[in-house]
Amino acid sequence: MAIAKPALILFGHGARDPEWALPFRKIRALLVARNPALTVELAFLELMEPSLPDAIARLAADGHGHITVAPLFIAQGGHLKQDLPKILDAIRAEQRGVEITLLPALGEVDTVLEMIAAWLGSVVR
Amino acid sequence: MAIAKPALILFGHGARDPEWALPFRKIRALLVARNPALTVELAFLELMEPSLPDAIARLAADGHGHITVAPLFIAQGGHLKQDLPKILDAIRAEQRGVEITLLPALGEVDTVLEMIAAWLGSVVR
Repeated sequence: MAIAKPALILFGHGARDPEWALPFRKIRALLVARNPALTVELAFLELMEPSLPDAIARLAADGHGHITVAPLFIAQGGHLKQDLPKILDAIRAEQRGVEITLLPALGEVDTVLEMIAAWLGSVVR
Repeated sequence: MAIAKPALILFGHGARDPEWALPFRKIRALLVARNPALTVELAFLELMEPSLPDAIARLAADGHGHITVAPLFIAQGGHLKQDLPKILDAIRAEQRGVEITLLPALGEVDTVLEMIAAWLGSVVR
């Protein structure tokens, strides 16, 4: 069997407003443009589709043996500390052949915080 | 009267978990370290203190005539499209001497999306 392309899931909270997902689609487009070898999908905790289990099941069915999940949350609270570990435990029990790597939330990454601070410092007057 | 220092409010959703605010405090510390002339405060929509009206009232009482509000939301849904304009209208009616500038949400800023995509592209394998 051919080695499948690496896969990344941009995982967001979700919202009632369909336009809420626009930044996620833009990040996806930027990533795909720069890394054609990377498969990038979106997934949501609630209010939007697909769910994380559905997105991972689809990628696994396409032969992806390693999937990275990037929680695009500005900070980590109950959703990431309590909900997400349970969701991932259930997915790992279901998808035994798939290795899942969880990235830290945006707000846990010093590089990202520095970039946000640099942007804010450049626009505030 | 002396011209007051420029003021920036980092406005977040808020959460039950006190640690949720940590990235906001880190961004604040980075901004203050680089821009000693800038006053930076936090404010929250719900579940955390202070509220945006309270934070602005305090800065106005300290003599700040111009306050920039940066919504640190990854995307804009009902909170930013419906709730925030109403909150700002009420604040502007109350604080007539204060000019308030609203920055776009993080997810509305191409520079920020490109930085997030660049970071993701550098860590995914």
